[in-house]
Amino acid sequence: MPLLGLLPRRAWASLLSQLLRPPCASCTGAVRCQSQGEESLQVAEAVLTSQLKAHQEKPNFIIKTPKGTRDLSPQHMVVREKILDLVISCFKRHGAKGMDTPAFELKETLTEKYGEDSGLMYDLKDQGGELLSLRYDLTVPFARYLAMNKVKKMKRYHVGKVWRRESPTIVQGRYREFCQCDFDIAGQFDPMIPDAECLKIMCEILSGLQLGDFLIKVNDRRIVDGMFAVCGVPESKFRAICSSIDKLDKMAWKDVRHEMVVKKGLAPEVADRIGDYVQCHGGVSLVEQMFQDPRLSQNKQALEGLGDLKLLFEYLTLFGIADKISFDLSLARGLDYYTGVIYEAVLLQTPTQAGEEPLNVGSVAAGGRYDGLVGMFDPKGHKVPCVGLSIGVERIFYIVEQRMKTKGEKVRTTETQVFVATPQKNFLQERLKLIAELWDSGIKAEMLYKNNPKLLTQLHYCESTGIPLVVIIGEQELKEGVIKIRSVASREEVAIKRENFVAEIQKRLSES
Amino acid sequence: MPLLGLLPRRAWASLLSQLLRPPCASCTGAVRCQSQGEESLQVAEAVLTSQLKAHQEKPNFIIKTPKGTRDLSPQHMVVREKILDLVISCFKRHGAKGMDTPAFELKETLTEKYGEDSGLMYDLKDQGGELLSLRYDLTVPFARYLAMNKVKKMKRYHVGKVWRRESPTIVQGRYREFCQCDFDIAGQFDPMIPDAECLKIMCEILSGLQLGDFLIKVNDRRIVDGMFAVCGVPESKFRAICSSIDKLDKMAWKDVRHEMVVKKGLAPEVADRIGDYVQCHGGVSLVEQMFQDPRLSQNKQALEGLGDLKLLFEYLTLFGIADKISFDLSLARGLDYYTGVIYEAVLLQTPTQAGEEPLNVGSVAAGGRYDGLVGMFDPKGHKVPCVGLSIGVERIFYIVEQRMKTKGEKVRTTETQVFVATPQKNFLQERLKLIAELWDSGIKAEMLYKNNPKLLTQLHYCESTGIPLVVIIGEQELKEGVIKIRSVASREEVAIKRENFVAEIQKRLSES
Repeated sequence: MPLLGLLPRRAWASLLSQLLRPPCASCTGAVRCQSQGEESLQVAEAVLTSQLKAHQEKPNFIIKTPKGTRDLSPQHMVVREKILDLVISCFKRHGAKGMDTPAFELKETLTEKYGEDSGLMYDLKDQGGELLSLRYDLTVPFARYLAMNKVKKMKRYHVGKVWRRESPTIVQGRYREFCQCDFDIAGQFDPMIPDAECLKIMCEILSGLQLGDFLIKVNDRRIVDGMFAVCGVPESKFRAICSSIDKLDKMAWKDVRHEMVVKKGLAPEVADRIGDYVQCHGGVSLVEQMFQDPRLSQNKQALEGLGDLKLLFEYLTLFGIADKISFDLSLARGLDYYTGVIYEAVLLQTPTQAGEEPLNVGSVAAGGRYDGLVGMFDPKGHKVPCVGLSIGVERIFYIVEQRMKTKGEKVRTTETQVFVATPQKNFLQERLKLIAELWDSGIKAEMLYKNNPKLLTQLHYCESTGIPLVVIIGEQELKEGVIKIRSVASREEVAIKRENFVAEIQKRLSES
Repeated sequence: MPLLGLLPRRAWASLLSQLLRPPCASCTGAVRCQSQGEESLQVAEAVLTSQLKAHQEKPNFIIKTPKGTRDLSPQHMVVREKILDLVISCFKRHGAKGMDTPAFELKETLTEKYGEDSGLMYDLKDQGGELLSLRYDLTVPFARYLAMNKVKKMKRYHVGKVWRRESPTIVQGRYREFCQCDFDIAGQFDPMIPDAECLKIMCEILSGLQLGDFLIKVNDRRIVDGMFAVCGVPESKFRAICSSIDKLDKMAWKDVRHEMVVKKGLAPEVADRIGDYVQCHGGVSLVEQMFQDPRLSQNKQALEGLGDLKLLFEYLTLFGIADKISFDLSLARGLDYYTGVIYEAVLLQTPTQAGEEPLNVGSVAAGGRYDGLVGMFDPKGHKVPCVGLSIGVERIFYIVEQRMKTKGEKVRTTETQVFVATPQKNFLQERLKLIAELWDSGIKAEMLYKNNPKLLTQLHYCESTGIPLVVIIGEQELKEGVIKIRSVASREEVAIKRENFVAEIQKRLSES
């Protein structure tokens, strides 16, 4: 490593860039650009002396996690592990393989894939290599993987973090860093069979998590576009209007209409025609009805979408989940890459009264068909049709945590089975020997890291952390060649021969 | 969202910044700085037209993962899952709680923690918020967590990705993005008890993974510093010389000496004195010997370190692992934050001949005591002593994958138990009904997404993916109210009543 004086060059550069960076985000033009090049070290060095004093006087910075992010405490982690286990085992039940991709991609890989949301991407600083961005979802990296490896067929799941620079509305469980659980089927198959399986998976996961009643809204991008066309939306505005429609689950029609007319320049009468359609939702009978719709039935794309939805409902009936599915013309999905069926699962608040509209408390899973995305990465544009889903686990974590809080449920954050204790002083050596035997036998064991802990402290530790068994060694036990096993719950103690104690504990653990 | 013409402001900014960015990394000074501010949109717009043409003519970009990163294929993931399961279950066996922190931290959180390596950090682009960097290890975020939440005592594990901008030497399993598995014990305890547990954990994991013979080198930062002091290293050069010594596992003494003398300005005779010490390694007897060393025994710090090592060896003997531990004066550990015991586990190549020096094939786990790090985050400097370890799982993944390749071992990348097949056309409906029943009973099942697949294709799929059982439905079976269960291995088929088939399959699966 080349050196500059006594400090290595890298350390210098790092130190200088810290000192030179102004405390606020305002741009200091020339100086800032110069500080990025190594050749500028001398210039920067001159500035150093004057700034050093300011740096030393700077008060301690605030200890925090970056805006929109948070640590996951052991309590969070226990809930997460349970939920992710259920989700992943469902994915495996459907034959999916695991996969992972890097946290960041070439910036070019991600651009022009997300429509209006592209600005929410986290870019990495240009440190003299490639231009990189943190991944925004798991779908685009999957498509990039398929194209790069020329994979024509694959059923995979992927659980990982993604990053979006949204204003965090933390109360609803939306963060700038969050976990996604994706399942996708890539390949050319007969229509609607993989699509139906995706909906089946969403049903299995949402039922399995016991989150209460739910509904999956289904639509088709071709029906959305067909609807736009027959209502008179200019084709150049399809994606922009689609983004507006996508907000219908959070905004009233009145406000969405306003956005379309005032901000996106749609003619009011066109907006009103759309308004008539997006009120429609229902089962397979609505599909039939739309086939008869005087305007929609004139649109080729829409007819294709309706035909596929009809077939989809047939398969969903065979899967026994058709009652959970609602054809909903207000569903648009914001992302650019969808080309066919789209869907979104929402939880319904409390069992609804007869005749009452179920209340939407937010989307917890969504997905759709994207037949063109892989082709965007292929030099020759070869397409690999894909369909998939993403479980919104963050919102699910939040709901489950809230429910546990309401019920006052306590979670154990460790799995320790046995605690090694002593009532006397100078028994550290014996405790260390005992606990090593337990660990070596695969038993989860703890002790206090003190030479001479009090027995009460040790027993209290077991009670507060939920450890069920205590192994006790003292003078009496040592003399008799036994150890005592104590049940924390019943406070019963029995003496066991020293040489049999591991077997005895294993027996008790397997019984409980 | 405010709009600028027809495109939303964010989309404009994103589009412009792409077009304005020069294709190579050279700095275009003023233009680049301007393009970051929103007020500069008009200036940028003027540049747009001239650059648009160049953009359109740009050839397709290369599809790849960023430098030093890679995708993890299903094959990789299976090996990973196995190894991580073993590591995590060991951490849980020792009573650790799970935890997670964001992928990035405030840049200030990470600066001045890593010594010479600070320049290897990935910074995020300043997009008008906080200055952020991707985490470089899991230790500093843990210390930040403890200080931020005023946690005085905690035993936690953390499995997660970290990022370092090193030149990737991929063949050895070193990437710019890699997974770390950390276990740490924070809190004020009696000396060396948690430290000994950390070494026990490393032994359990390395034995459990069956990677062959290994050795854990142990030293103490206070002995390293004491050695530097008695050899005549000026205190200002301690950390720099420490970094050089840390390279002894990859570089010959000759080269390390050269670096210390020529690059770091150490007097040759001082370097030679260090050279005498760093050759020493051995068991607890070497600790005793160093207590008698005429120079080292004059240094208070070194004596404290030696005293702790002596106690440590006592506990390691009780744990039955003292024979795996070597007191090694050449072990220095590069990171700035260590304050006490340090250790590093290396795999030994093949059983060594008598008298032969075992060959070091690289570090697979390491750690140490860092009593000052949490205090660096606390406004009042309150310290929380910590000791911990990190398993170098990437290298372990690599070793296990190589071994499997050598042995020609094949891994199943799915866990599917049952395949639903048909020998006839027009049986999609029946297959869909059957497979839904299997899924609903928790059985892992697949079928082909075709209306009318050939039987041979279906059976071949089972053989190539390792699915053990096939459920077959055809005209004959439908008429008789049965289904056939076929064992892929033995090719035996039996007919089972349709209504009993799930129970029968569950029975077979539990037997195998």
